[in-house]
Amino acid sequence: MATTSPDLTALVLVGSLKSSSDPSSSERLGTQVLEALGEHGVTGTVVRLADHDVRPGVEVDMGDGDAWPAIRRQVLAADILVVATPIWMGQPSSVTKRALERLDAELSETDDQGRMLTSGKVAAVAVVGNEDGAHHTSAEIFQALNDVGFTLAAGAVTYWVGEAMGDVDYTDLEETPEKVARTTKALAASTAHLARLLRQSPYPPA
Amino acid sequence: MATTSPDLTALVLVGSLKSSSDPSSSERLGTQVLEALGEHGVTGTVVRLADHDVRPGVEVDMGDGDAWPAIRRQVLAADILVVATPIWMGQPSSVTKRALERLDAELSETDDQGRMLTSGKVAAVAVVGNEDGAHHTSAEIFQALNDVGFTLAAGAVTYWVGEAMGDVDYTDLEETPEKVARTTKALAASTAHLARLLRQSPYPPA
Amino acid sequence: MATTSPDLTALVLVGSLKSSSDPSSSERLGTQVLEALGEHGVTGTVVRLADHDVRPGVEVDMGDGDAWPAIRRQVLAADILVVATPIWMGQPSSVTKRALERLDAELSETDDQGRMLTSGKVAAVAVVGNEDGAHHTSAEIFQALNDVGFTLAAGAVTYWVGEAMGDVDYTDLEETPEKVARTTKALAASTAHLARLLRQSPYPPA
Amino acid sequence: MATTSPDLTALVLVGSLKSSSDPSSSERLGTQVLEALGEHGVTGTVVRLADHDVRPGVEVDMGDGDAWPAIRRQVLAADILVVATPIWMGQPSSVTKRALERLDAELSETDDQGRMLTSGKVAAVAVVGNEDGAHHTSAEIFQALNDVGFTLAAGAVTYWVGEAMGDVDYTDLEETPEKVARTTKALAASTAHLARLLRQSPYPPA
Repeated sequence: MATTSPDLTALVLVGSLKSSSDPSSSERLGTQVLEALGEHGVTGTVVRLADHDVRPGVEVDMGDGDAWPAIRRQVLAADILVVATPIWMGQPSSVTKRALERLDAELSETDDQGRMLTSGKVAAVAVVGNEDGAHHTSAEIFQALNDVGFTLAAGAVTYWVGEAMGDVDYTDLEETPEKVARTTKALAASTAHLARLLRQSPYPPA
Repeated sequence: MATTSPDLTALVLVGSLKSSSDPSSSERLGTQVLEALGEHGVTGTVVRLADHDVRPGVEVDMGDGDAWPAIRRQVLAADILVVATPIWMGQPSSVTKRALERLDAELSETDDQGRMLTSGKVAAVAVVGNEDGAHHTSAEIFQALNDVGFTLAAGAVTYWVGEAMGDVDYTDLEETPEKVARTTKALAASTAHLARLLRQSPYPPA
Repeated sequence: MATTSPDLTALVLVGSLKSSSDPSSSERLGTQVLEALGEHGVTGTVVRLADHDVRPGVEVDMGDGDAWPAIRRQVLAADILVVATPIWMGQPSSVTKRALERLDAELSETDDQGRMLTSGKVAAVAVVGNEDGAHHTSAEIFQALNDVGFTLAAGAVTYWVGEAMGDVDYTDLEETPEKVARTTKALAASTAHLARLLRQSPYPPA
Repeated sequence: MATTSPDLTALVLVGSLKSSSDPSSSERLGTQVLEALGEHGVTGTVVRLADHDVRPGVEVDMGDGDAWPAIRRQVLAADILVVATPIWMGQPSSVTKRALERLDAELSETDDQGRMLTSGKVAAVAVVGNEDGAHHTSAEIFQALNDVGFTLAAGAVTYWVGEAMGDVDYTDLEETPEKVARTTKALAASTAHLARLLRQSPYPPA
């Protein structure tokens, strides 16, 4: 079926503070988004940002061991970018912020028609925390990604947080809450649909 | 030309604190967005929210003189929703917030395929202030509108603010700053393109 | 005991979307803050904003039936201002925003030593919602109140929200969760302490 | 004079993305805050965070070369903490966020009376950017610091940003704009006053 032709790819950037030797709630939800996208013909990869030495800075390449250029190539090769982040103090993690900050350099990078290299790519967000902060975290990530050229499908965030002042992790849950599963599934359907449309009918030249 | 067939409509909601007897910077920028959309075959209307008695509440109709149901009909009839707001204290105006809050009721309203009535509609944001606050204001509006079913094209905000602690209004400027004009133009091109795609190829049933 | 002399007063502004004929979760938590302040010699009043016709605008008095001037007198008469708000879409209510916006006019009102009339007043925040949004809501209110001259004691917010995507109200809880009660109590102790210090030793002239 | 006895200390954490071999706008404004505090008997130090290897994580000490424990000792030794940050994408820098995140561990560290070790410390914020974002950046930092025990004096932020979409740096300005200088001066007066009061009359035990 044309509308689910399996030619879309997604990259999931996981902004956990921990490297991949430790389990991560944000990776779990990010992976669930990737699985849900898989039902719409999207294949992809998960990158745990804390495994890589992403330098602070606002150039595309900060040189000398900077891990961003390799990750950036994966971002630019994918049709869909999923940013999966834990919440700390009601806000996105510093690891996630670092990646967004590095994307700011894309404002100066354009194709021969004046469009950003991110043009036509669709972004989605996955947020987890013990308690509170998902809406604001998604708001900040939506704005940052939209500013650097990403499109956002309807319902572009899936999230889980526990009750106020709680300390349960998403990885502690025995099963995925039904509402979260449904939200993830809807996000994937909308995001894949939109990415496919924009692949077929790119934005006009700037 | 098929891609600019003039069958799209837009509604601009202006969240100025003042009614239309006074000039409004947010209305000026919102109107510029509508004009820019006009170059892509979009026709539309500007509604000054402060002219209407939009009641607080989270039902579709709060009864007894509530002006929201009529505005809501205009929102649901349009393909594109533009929210134009002034900044107060670095944040969207209370008038704008009221309209967003009323849109929260859409979460319970779905078509016979389980989709929200806002499904497939594209939103854009215009923000003005004397100084500072545009990014955060757009972040909050992006998140609220995306939560209730709107899609956001790349570069979905245009804005103007003066230097820190300044007091010049956008309506005081003799001419539109070139970067603002360019941003408005790009927003209109992306937003109209995306609205047209989603009109032709709606999101799948939920 | 000097440090608990009963001469401090507090005003609780409740930003529920509903008038006082309906029960309100934000009023419940706001009232609990006032009770906790009572243990530190503070007496006070609760004002349900939706009962009053607070007009949009940025003047101290918008004239012709505007309810703000009377509320403003209560704000200026109190040592402590508590803003209690529900969360809608992860953000403060429009009713709360309206009150904050009206406080913006205080930037132009100063005493004969150049200090704002809010100088030396201490603010605290109470936030409730079905799910998510308390940290961001407090962040916005902290910033708005601090910008117009209020001081914030350590731990200036108490809050409750349920698990992600839930729909239980704070007024539905049979009893106040122990962590919330403890947070409210700590907020009251710090806020009363600081208000008393600033009453005794005002900020220096500007 | 008793009220300006020179026994208060301040620490300025600068969240520039660049290390101290490069000029920094946020360091410039942070240093100006320290100078202004100096007129109220406060002495202090500036730490450029990007010069140090502050690891991601939420423990007080992440071990193995983590630079945070040494910086943390400076935070805990000072009466006043100034967080000076650049704005990227309308938000605090990732370097600043990292430091705030590390402060989250203080929630578990208390003195023998149950108070956080940050209790009685006063925080202030300095924000600079080419354009837009200061209010939101201060809102996020206020909330994070207040959550971990810091008190905020009236007018706890000073900032500068240029006109929308501009690219002038604060370090490019030939002289400090008068309104910024006045705001910095007022911040210093209030912050020093409050820190002195809390040094003399600590918050009660929890």
